Amino acid sequence: MTEIKVGIIMGSQSDWPTMKEAATILDDLGVPYEAKIVSAHRTPDRLWEYGKKAAERGLQVIIAGAGGAAHLPGMVASKTRVPVVGVPVQTRALSGVDSLYSIVQMPKGFPVATMAIGAAGAANAGLMAAGILALQDKDLAQRLDAWREALSASIPEEPIDD
Amino acid sequence: MTEIKVGIIMGSQSDWPTMKEAATILDDLGVPYEAKIVSAHRTPDRLWEYGKKAAERGLQVIIAGAGGAAHLPGMVASKTRVPVVGVPVQTRALSGVDSLYSIVQMPKGFPVATMAIGAAGAANAGLMAAGILALQDKDLAQRLDAWREALSASIPEEPIDD
Amino acid sequence: MTEIKVGIIMGSQSDWPTMKEAATILDDLGVPYEAKIVSAHRTPDRLWEYGKKAAERGLQVIIAGAGGAAHLPGMVASKTRVPVVGVPVQTRALSGVDSLYSIVQMPKGFPVATMAIGAAGAANAGLMAAGILALQDKDLAQRLDAWREALSASIPEEPIDD
Amino acid sequence: MTEIKVGIIMGSQSDWPTMKEAATILDDLGVPYEAKIVSAHRTPDRLWEYGKKAAERGLQVIIAGAGGAAHLPGMVASKTRVPVVGVPVQTRALSGVDSLYSIVQMPKGFPVATMAIGAAGAANAGLMAAGILALQDKDLAQRLDAWREALSASIPEEPIDD
Amino acid sequence: MTEIKVGIIMGSQSDWPTMKEAATILDDLGVPYEAKIVSAHRTPDRLWEYGKKAAERGLQVIIAGAGGAAHLPGMVASKTRVPVVGVPVQTRALSGVDSLYSIVQMPKGFPVATMAIGAAGAANAGLMAAGILALQDKDLAQRLDAWREALSASIPEEPIDD
Amino acid sequence: MTEIKVGIIMGSQSDWPTMKEAATILDDLGVPYEAKIVSAHRTPDRLWEYGKKAAERGLQVIIAGAGGAAHLPGMVASKTRVPVVGVPVQTRALSGVDSLYSIVQMPKGFPVATMAIGAAGAANAGLMAAGILALQDKDLAQRLDAWREALSASIPEEPIDD
Amino acid sequence: MTEIKVGIIMGSQSDWPTMKEAATILDDLGVPYEAKIVSAHRTPDRLWEYGKKAAERGLQVIIAGAGGAAHLPGMVASKTRVPVVGVPVQTRALSGVDSLYSIVQMPKGFPVATMAIGAAGAANAGLMAAGILALQDKDLAQRLDAWREALSASIPEEPIDD
Amino acid sequence: MTEIKVGIIMGSQSDWPTMKEAATILDDLGVPYEAKIVSAHRTPDRLWEYGKKAAERGLQVIIAGAGGAAHLPGMVASKTRVPVVGVPVQTRALSGVDSLYSIVQMPKGFPVATMAIGAAGAANAGLMAAGILALQDKDLAQRLDAWREALSASIPEEPIDD
Repeated sequence: MTEIKVGIIMGSQSDWPTMKEAATILDDLGVPYEAKIVSAHRTPDRLWEYGKKAAERGLQVIIAGAGGAAHLPGMVASKTRVPVVGVPVQTRALSGVDSLYSIVQMPKGFPVATMAIGAAGAANAGLMAAGILALQDKDLAQRLDAWREALSASIPEEPIDD
Repeated sequence: MTEIKVGIIMGSQSDWPTMKEAATILDDLGVPYEAKIVSAHRTPDRLWEYGKKAAERGLQVIIAGAGGAAHLPGMVASKTRVPVVGVPVQTRALSGVDSLYSIVQMPKGFPVATMAIGAAGAANAGLMAAGILALQDKDLAQRLDAWREALSASIPEEPIDD
Repeated sequence: MTEIKVGIIMGSQSDWPTMKEAATILDDLGVPYEAKIVSAHRTPDRLWEYGKKAAERGLQVIIAGAGGAAHLPGMVASKTRVPVVGVPVQTRALSGVDSLYSIVQMPKGFPVATMAIGAAGAANAGLMAAGILALQDKDLAQRLDAWREALSASIPEEPIDD
Repeated sequence: MTEIKVGIIMGSQSDWPTMKEAATILDDLGVPYEAKIVSAHRTPDRLWEYGKKAAERGLQVIIAGAGGAAHLPGMVASKTRVPVVGVPVQTRALSGVDSLYSIVQMPKGFPVATMAIGAAGAANAGLMAAGILALQDKDLAQRLDAWREALSASIPEEPIDD
Repeated sequence: MTEIKVGIIMGSQSDWPTMKEAATILDDLGVPYEAKIVSAHRTPDRLWEYGKKAAERGLQVIIAGAGGAAHLPGMVASKTRVPVVGVPVQTRALSGVDSLYSIVQMPKGFPVATMAIGAAGAANAGLMAAGILALQDKDLAQRLDAWREALSASIPEEPIDD
Repeated sequence: MTEIKVGIIMGSQSDWPTMKEAATILDDLGVPYEAKIVSAHRTPDRLWEYGKKAAERGLQVIIAGAGGAAHLPGMVASKTRVPVVGVPVQTRALSGVDSLYSIVQMPKGFPVATMAIGAAGAANAGLMAAGILALQDKDLAQRLDAWREALSASIPEEPIDD
Repeated sequence: MTEIKVGIIMGSQSDWPTMKEAATILDDLGVPYEAKIVSAHRTPDRLWEYGKKAAERGLQVIIAGAGGAAHLPGMVASKTRVPVVGVPVQTRALSGVDSLYSIVQMPKGFPVATMAIGAAGAANAGLMAAGILALQDKDLAQRLDAWREALSASIPEEPIDD
Repeated sequence: MTEIKVGIIMGSQSDWPTMKEAATILDDLGVPYEAKIVSAHRTPDRLWEYGKKAAERGLQVIIAGAGGAAHLPGMVASKTRVPVVGVPVQTRALSGVDSLYSIVQMPKGFPVATMAIGAAGAANAGLMAAGILALQDKDLAQRLDAWREALSASIPEEPIDD
């Protein structure tokens, strides 16, 4: 059985359209992952368990997305030394600035690798996870290089009118 | 022995100069309280315990102060139905806007009664706690009324030059 | 007759779609309340009356929602020691940041228990009111615990595609 | 006896160093004024009285300065048709953006003529009051024109090193 | 012929849907006005002329609306002692915060009586103009009082579901 | 006599410590310039004259610095086709965000080449002016290239402790 | 063959609807240009080449548009002394404030002539380029003057209802 | 010889007091690193080289700190698949919000693991690097766990007055 190395967690079902971007990237790069709803506030014990068992379960990267007073990434980071990548989900009133500040402004001791607000950030969380795993996996490193080269190659020389 | 009804918790020793304002108000109004350092990230298990036992210990209000990615108030609120009053501590780079957003923008289900940034907010947290307790304590209600009247009476009619 | 313990007040009819969320929560938890339009600027005398009589009428919590230069929560708080919970209503130009600052940045002496901007904040205002009343009402405390447990239980383990 | 035509009011003694700038301008232009501390939250009844009697007392402009959740200018404007000029006092955490939003974002019906944050805004409040009074007072209009010309004339052609 | 006492000027035709709110209020209160397009950048000489002749033409209040780098209100204020009321028009990218800062943050010497962003601000500009004119016009003062009373009277006691 | 090609103008003497950075760069690169105080609000006619005569006087770049409601750069740009470089001067309450928005958010038709807030922006205004002049002046182009190379060469490989 | 004097570059095809405004202005003024996609991150070598060859290819102005962490304008400016005009493209979460800060806040040594966020800024970038080229091209200077006069002449005296 | 696994790079010497916090953490955890000044704008070729050779040189994590229009982290990320951790250095006018937005808002394809603004962020960058390396190094994992436990253990139960 393929060992799951990346855990994608999110505060609620409504974060999935954003966080799916991370999953798509991992699919594209052939990185096995799991996707779970772990709400910092509504299921704090689930969060506790998830954080505490992350290392022993063999998780190597945790991607955590949340919006508003987004405590999930930072709280997981307080429970495990496994690198946590945070995705600020865009919010209605404050456009995700609240999510961004709640995730990125962590105190000394508990880093969260914060990505851009929204879908681009979620996709980049997948790429960051792949980049970390690629340090130990030459095949993945090559696939990641190829992905990057394909992205560069896809850019046309000139803009075109619709 | 006087039963402690208000718990003042804060993320770190550096929050105490701010949070002491809450303690001073409670002292002035004769409300017994405790003051503890409970860091959401550095002592997450302490936070868990604190939240889980708050109700059975007879706490009626929890005042929680934190700065930056300020997860303490919201995380305690996720563990107990005891009303949580949040104080955004002023920060160096973002002046406490990060603290404010991390505390106030809680998702449906877990209110945190957020106060103003900094010392005024901490003092007001003490007054909010007193106001809640006064609903069941006529003597405290009178002391609170007197405190408010004294504040109003202290305002001179005209400004004076230094 | 059931005594009304919570007053929901708002600056205008246009705030009701937001503030109704507070009413719904109180309905769900069986807490009797009233809902009134009390405009700080258009009906200042109504505000005065409301604040002055709140305690003697037996109100235990006042939930006040307003947008823009949102003076209603703070002005009511200046007239009564009854705990005031403030809800910043989302606004067109500034998304409710104006409402938030006008409500939360109260000076020492007059706390307003500020909630998140918009509908989530209004729902949480209802829960905060319930949490305060539950300190004196074991049945309500149980209903609130049950509401919280149901919320937690409703969270699926994994996100699902639409 | 000279009739007082301008009322300068402020939320607290700590606003006076800012609001004194308005008084100085009025002194310079020979406009009689009074300066009072009227706190929206600590002395709401004083505010009520002040607003209600402003017109009959012959006040023609009210200059109101306040900081943070600055409700004074807007609340006075709700009690009188006399033009209210608002001065956002600079604050510690939010630099007066909270004051500005609380003063300027008034709903339809109750304008507050908002000035710049801080001392420049207070001086300009004095000038705005003078400009309004000058509509009925040719001598004052001439003094105001002279003040403006003197300001223009005071600007050197070239900057000088210290 | 009725003398025009209020000039409504705006930076472009696209500001008219906002500024019309000021005109509507003046219509309702029977205050004669003119509405002109005067662009600070595209028709600077028109602005110059407008400012320079305002006093001698008998204008008593100038209402100036503009968006973005909104220089119109402040530049007119530099050319005339006639009170200038500024309306920050809402903008696409920055929601009118750019307009607000460009209008309100005037240096000492040249006040602009700044209103709220957008339509409410424009309506209030009309009311502020009326309030200033009412200082010399008892009939207008009565009409303004009546307008205010009607507004207050229009507020229902309780919110209604749609 | 050396023809002056760059005009440095600023709203007040207090902007000179910032704007001197532009002058220093121009001195270093041997570009003749003049430095004048031209206040948009206090000396609007001076601004008018300056803008109107800029092209015929042979000015090739105008560097305009101002703070707060910073109208100088945009108003000069409305009076001349000579390229205008704007420098947002840092302000006390809003740190120059007000200056930045007032300068950069110009409407279609009147570009202002906006630089960073404060001293770095002023120095860069000098470099931008030099870069524009260098298009017609090979010697200056070489001096500018040399200045850039010297800057790059001055960067040590490794940081050093104080 | 007409020599190309202005290069319009942008980070991605999605920036073209904005940047086309610059192209339209240059078309209107008869200024030959090229439009290229040069992504700072996806095609860094293309950026390198573009910057390095700009001067020798005879480019006199580079207009660079980008959104979010908008590094293109500043990075090109680091590679060439040719004046770079930056256009902050509006973004979904942060409305282009991220683009603006990433473009305008350049350190000493590498100015980017920053325009307004979005389409108005792109059009102005075209006008700024024309203004720079007009310093050496009297015919273009006349066409630019005519364009400006036509813009001014197009402004009606009074607003019209739709 | 110990192989260097972490590269700390920064835009200028003035960033070193901040970035030294990362170095100190790596020293404490026994992780070999190098510290270099690599300016995106002043030494773009150095940046190019650094990015291009990072993988082959065996670097496993790059920590990049910069302020203002902070392009260094993102540009390095465009040149290498090695994980890049970004530290927004606090700035004078905008307190590091400019740095934060310039670093975190990366487009899809090029993640930068963004930390908090300033010294806490730099220390956390060191911890994030250690956490990534610990995935392949059990001894380091233990030292990191010990570091975290010591941090937790250092938190006293109660705050103390100075």
